[in-house]
Amino acid sequence: MAICFLSPVKTINLSPFPSITTTRHHPNPNHLRCNFSLTTVTTTEPEPVFTSVRSFAPATVANLGPGFDFLGCAVDGLGDFVSVAVDSSVIPGEISISGISGPEASSKLSADPLWNCAGIAAIATMKMLGVRSVGLSLNLEKGLPLGSGLGSSAASAAAAAVAVNEIFGRKLTQKELVLAGLESEAKVSGYHADNIAPAIMGGFVLISSYDPLELMRLEFPREKELFFVLVSPEFEAPTKKMRAALPAEIGMPHHVWNCSQAGALVASVLNGDAAALGKALSSDKIVEPKRAPLIPGMEAVKKAALEAGAFGCTISGAGPTAVAVIDDEGRGVEIGKRMVEAFQKEGNLKAVAMVKSLDRVGARLVTTVPS
Amino acid sequence: MAICFLSPVKTINLSPFPSITTTRHHPNPNHLRCNFSLTTVTTTEPEPVFTSVRSFAPATVANLGPGFDFLGCAVDGLGDFVSVAVDSSVIPGEISISGISGPEASSKLSADPLWNCAGIAAIATMKMLGVRSVGLSLNLEKGLPLGSGLGSSAASAAAAAVAVNEIFGRKLTQKELVLAGLESEAKVSGYHADNIAPAIMGGFVLISSYDPLELMRLEFPREKELFFVLVSPEFEAPTKKMRAALPAEIGMPHHVWNCSQAGALVASVLNGDAAALGKALSSDKIVEPKRAPLIPGMEAVKKAALEAGAFGCTISGAGPTAVAVIDDEGRGVEIGKRMVEAFQKEGNLKAVAMVKSLDRVGARLVTTVPS
Repeated sequence: MAICFLSPVKTINLSPFPSITTTRHHPNPNHLRCNFSLTTVTTTEPEPVFTSVRSFAPATVANLGPGFDFLGCAVDGLGDFVSVAVDSSVIPGEISISGISGPEASSKLSADPLWNCAGIAAIATMKMLGVRSVGLSLNLEKGLPLGSGLGSSAASAAAAAVAVNEIFGRKLTQKELVLAGLESEAKVSGYHADNIAPAIMGGFVLISSYDPLELMRLEFPREKELFFVLVSPEFEAPTKKMRAALPAEIGMPHHVWNCSQAGALVASVLNGDAAALGKALSSDKIVEPKRAPLIPGMEAVKKAALEAGAFGCTISGAGPTAVAVIDDEGRGVEIGKRMVEAFQKEGNLKAVAMVKSLDRVGARLVTTVPS
Repeated sequence: MAICFLSPVKTINLSPFPSITTTRHHPNPNHLRCNFSLTTVTTTEPEPVFTSVRSFAPATVANLGPGFDFLGCAVDGLGDFVSVAVDSSVIPGEISISGISGPEASSKLSADPLWNCAGIAAIATMKMLGVRSVGLSLNLEKGLPLGSGLGSSAASAAAAAVAVNEIFGRKLTQKELVLAGLESEAKVSGYHADNIAPAIMGGFVLISSYDPLELMRLEFPREKELFFVLVSPEFEAPTKKMRAALPAEIGMPHHVWNCSQAGALVASVLNGDAAALGKALSSDKIVEPKRAPLIPGMEAVKKAALEAGAFGCTISGAGPTAVAVIDDEGRGVEIGKRMVEAFQKEGNLKAVAMVKSLDRVGARLVTTVPS
């Protein structure tokens, strides 16, 4: 939903929710001691079961029209990689970011773990595990574009949380990893789990409560096809600006309408009805009408997608990526072309299209090196 | 949701939606010619396949907390019966109400088909079938209390629509019968299908659109148990007053919350998770907080239900009935006792409790007499 840009190193409160304070006392500014108040989950300090691990976490589409702020899903074959290694040169209980790669990433992302999505999530995970005797180094490979509305920050955080959990023998549950990832999201875009939860759990995830965190994994039937046409224009849509565009008050008819469409969206997911899913996704009368005009050409792009046969189309996350839904990959490619043309013609924006299926796995271990 | 009280006979427009006009020209004031603009669905006029039929339609619980105005469900073993017979004494194309029975019903309900929920729905169904050559008499047996929030008017309308459809050989679909029943609901409580749709279709029904009407039947898994504890106090909660209590504008946080709970409610139904269903049903932050204070003792009744182990509790329809959810009939009886006590103690209201399971069938034919 948002990204961590380079910022000065300082002691901060990472989130207004679970209170976190940090202490610096190492000559390397990229080292950070875990010293905050997230609950330690394990009773005894775990030992690493691998020397190093590499993990992957997928891109995510949040908001999903009437699913605004509580529903998101993961998309396959697009995401970030994180490698984590036991590193004796890092002070025990601390973490160091050893490298960041990927287009734009090395210049725009901070190598300070306090200001890097992967770093914040890794620290939170170490804290929950109660790691005090081992230092880790972390390498981030960005596969996702920054600030595109595809859950770039969540993918980094999810991959990091999973990597740290795996290197210590997978002691934490997915929900605990979501809580760790939320520390990162809270820092960059607010305490919203609609990217981080599907990035970690895969598939569609509904956040039904934050206090306590309650997540519902919605299973789109495996025998059914579902493709997302993701069209990203060269345009910056800052999350803060997109959030400021939201109405403070909503009339009862629009509230009832969006609630009914949220219900229809959830039912369509569980029933594996891609057409009804697209229709519900496309039906938002509250958020999309306020945000679409801020992305040049978006309304024409949606129209083009629907005319080309898409079941539905809306803004992915806070934008600027447009997401359309279809049940056939080939038709998805055609729809993507029409959407790119519309961005060019009506918004004067260059755009790229991708057709991706649903990721049903979420953040995962990719490779390991045994201890 | 509301009831048809006795009113003077006059020519009226039955609904602001599909425009309906009626013409009277028969000495019997309970006869009515079908002469309105609902689309005739059958291409040739159907002939009756039975001399008479008797149908049943169940009670319904609408609103369901965050499912306000778009979600309802049917409850088993409680409802209205309608008998319809070919009657040569009735002018062809017209209908006559021959009798109304049930506690309070004969004194409070009109025998004028223009002002009776069953009559209006029967007329609408005849119109859709294109019946011009046969007159019918209709007998209504009210099993439901009037104005209790259990879909009394919808049950009468549903039973009548199904009876007329069955006597002419079942030419109409369930959706068409819902449209016929909506003519009646529009007259008495507004163009809302959250009672009439589940009364006709059974189970849980989500109304995702009115123009055109689109209905989603949500299947609660058959192997799972679900019981409704229905507690009706001796108190009148007029639908108009309850609707006037609603807020005109809703803040974004409450909107997002209720949307997420609507999604959770739908997912719980489809997953057969009675506990999550109850929790979501109980979570409304918009409608219930405004309406509950208008029903003496309601807040205490909800508290008593939850303390007694109910998974959730809210107002059924526009009230005054309280509905709690549980997965065990015996525990439902205990919960009902606690709720009745709370109505007495905190609201100074006498109340009766029933424990009912989900009706999965909807309005149905009960008996027939062949032609």
